[in-house]
Amino acid sequence: MTLSNQTSVSEVVQKASLAKHAAQRMNMLTTEQKNEALLKMADALVAEQASIISANEIDLQRGRANGTSESLLDRLALNEKRIAAMADGLRQVVELPDPVGDLLEQFERPNGMLVRKFRVPLGVIGMIYEARPNVTVDAAALCLKTGNSVVLRGGSAALDSNRRIVEVLHEALASSAMPADALQLIFSSDRSSVDEMLKLNGLIDVLIPRGGASLIQNVVKNATVPVIETGAGICHTYIDESADYEMALRIAINAKVQRPSVCNSMETLLVHEAFAANHLAALAEQFYSHHTELRGDERARQLASGMKAASEQDWDTEYNDYILNVKIVSGLDEALAHIRNHSTMHSECIVTEHAGNAERFLQEIDAAAVYHNVSTRFTDGFEFGFGAEIGISTQKLHARGPMGLPALTSTKYVVTGNGQIRG
Amino acid sequence: MTLSNQTSVSEVVQKASLAKHAAQRMNMLTTEQKNEALLKMADALVAEQASIISANEIDLQRGRANGTSESLLDRLALNEKRIAAMADGLRQVVELPDPVGDLLEQFERPNGMLVRKFRVPLGVIGMIYEARPNVTVDAAALCLKTGNSVVLRGGSAALDSNRRIVEVLHEALASSAMPADALQLIFSSDRSSVDEMLKLNGLIDVLIPRGGASLIQNVVKNATVPVIETGAGICHTYIDESADYEMALRIAINAKVQRPSVCNSMETLLVHEAFAANHLAALAEQFYSHHTELRGDERARQLASGMKAASEQDWDTEYNDYILNVKIVSGLDEALAHIRNHSTMHSECIVTEHAGNAERFLQEIDAAAVYHNVSTRFTDGFEFGFGAEIGISTQKLHARGPMGLPALTSTKYVVTGNGQIRG
Repeated sequence: MTLSNQTSVSEVVQKASLAKHAAQRMNMLTTEQKNEALLKMADALVAEQASIISANEIDLQRGRANGTSESLLDRLALNEKRIAAMADGLRQVVELPDPVGDLLEQFERPNGMLVRKFRVPLGVIGMIYEARPNVTVDAAALCLKTGNSVVLRGGSAALDSNRRIVEVLHEALASSAMPADALQLIFSSDRSSVDEMLKLNGLIDVLIPRGGASLIQNVVKNATVPVIETGAGICHTYIDESADYEMALRIAINAKVQRPSVCNSMETLLVHEAFAANHLAALAEQFYSHHTELRGDERARQLASGMKAASEQDWDTEYNDYILNVKIVSGLDEALAHIRNHSTMHSECIVTEHAGNAERFLQEIDAAAVYHNVSTRFTDGFEFGFGAEIGISTQKLHARGPMGLPALTSTKYVVTGNGQIRG
Repeated sequence: MTLSNQTSVSEVVQKASLAKHAAQRMNMLTTEQKNEALLKMADALVAEQASIISANEIDLQRGRANGTSESLLDRLALNEKRIAAMADGLRQVVELPDPVGDLLEQFERPNGMLVRKFRVPLGVIGMIYEARPNVTVDAAALCLKTGNSVVLRGGSAALDSNRRIVEVLHEALASSAMPADALQLIFSSDRSSVDEMLKLNGLIDVLIPRGGASLIQNVVKNATVPVIETGAGICHTYIDESADYEMALRIAINAKVQRPSVCNSMETLLVHEAFAANHLAALAEQFYSHHTELRGDERARQLASGMKAASEQDWDTEYNDYILNVKIVSGLDEALAHIRNHSTMHSECIVTEHAGNAERFLQEIDAAAVYHNVSTRFTDGFEFGFGAEIGISTQKLHARGPMGLPALTSTKYVVTGNGQIRG
């Protein structure tokens, strides 16, 4: 396709059109062909690591000139070890079972026609993200493995790295059965290229945003293409009256401090008043020793020293940091009510030895994942054993919770017969 | 909930809030409790049929005064027989298996935690429709059976009928375990009430539009709440060179004329040039005898008399009427290309005795339902044996094709353990 005469067509439309056209061939590839292509991609990343690192250096220099924080620069930085990890990620996706072509249902109707329901690729997936360059490889691997085309729109901070990475992957695909056009990267870092993707019904089948709350909300609010919403997690742990102290401590500390920056970490700890009377002071000390700021309601602050006062807004805040809200509740009912009012319904935990209370919590809390005596930090595709994770869906349509490869597929009914007509 | 002091809160927000609150109780009802409530609803419709017919008479009078067509008035009209059919529909939904609570997956992880995935209700479903009052009962039955609350926004032409029907259903629910608030009807016939529903993230979990293309496109284009798109069908039948004439005739006639007004009827017939040379004239006569206007490409018009010329726009038009496009193709490749360019990917059929061509068609056409030697008219929840149909999804997320009760559910991961934390 020569694009020289098509100056009126935007980059986004051009690339999405190429991706859609390639999706037809993608849909026909065998698992072996797809795996072979992914392995070539992995090898190419390693073989071309010097040029990728050079491109990455341009991003880093621009970042430094723009005053980007050291922690963001560290996320952006690529080196041989990180590129090897990206290649390993590709090889791991090769090992995963291919869901495409799976026969999900089969039934014969009284008129003799056979109805079969197969898994098929979604078609063209639009990924909008802002994170590290490894997301570029990760998203490409998962989408291509499932027979989809993918249009990637990464953050401008990593643009040079992403361009070189995709160039390398395209070169690898040239000697494979997989059409290179199935993998598209939008070069424009203009906000309008995102806006355009959001409305590209007919060329993009599904949008998956990955990143901070404002990126995701922009996609959810403005897209006309169907979206899989991922991300925001205001997660609670409720320590019930009967909870084992050691277990409650272990779970609460893990849920907060093991990695505070992620969506399945805890933001608010709810503590039964009787448990709190005995243990809150000691529990608070443990959090302080993990450099965690506590913001308590009035009763919590009476029971443990060193807490700030929690504001109304705090209960609805995803800190992603070493900050934790603490609220004393009179029992399960108050805990359930608080969670219903303030949760994003991502991951919610009860610590209790009381089977009935556990059962009620697991039944009544309508979150993507509910936990009894297990840290919320396990809401994760790898921890669930999926071998991959596209993200954690916080919506109720299509997929909910950690998404593995099947979340990147749709279905198709195939009906065969010998002349059946409807009466 | 007293609403007298809340004059600033709109009807839509008030009712959606009540529905959301009721969704908590809905989620806890047993199948028996839900079925008992549906049976009471069925009995109440029959017991109160006189008042429903009176309310319907008001709608009919208004419709006549407004110059509504006889066919639309006929769709709107209720009588004892139609009310009995609505009640029977409710009783049939009672007989269907309840998908809520189904255990879909279960696995133990190496750390000993047990992960189970259960079906749960979606929560609050917003139904926006314009059709006959029976949709009110039908949608309520399917949503409530699956443990959802539902906010109904029907067409203004049926408002008095719908109001009385919902009043009767509410009275029936008062003596059941099901909260009456789970069933809400928006009275406002102002367009703004639809606009408001489309943006009600947090109160409405999913929107399902049912109706004409403009209604559905308005919802798809403007909603920020996730949507299940239903409806539009530009369906093709391709008669291959090797097709059996009698079978091809039977399927093509059935796909077009058995009920032209529905989405799974055929709009365009593609005919292999060799088959057309032998049979198109006879085939055309059969369509004429069924009062069907034919619009052909140039070659079709050379082979059969009486056809109008098809315009470019005709290939992209869903007639829902006794009009059919006819195009002659040189073979399977051209047929596939035409379908890819003009189909809404709803239902597509090949009539052939050639196994390889059938296989290619079924594999390469990415529609919700693909057919070999079977009329497209079977894309239907009842015909597929689902016992119900919420609609036919034409999108690729969540559900695709005819949607039975499971399409009105989401899932939840339930994780249980004995103190597992992430390392």
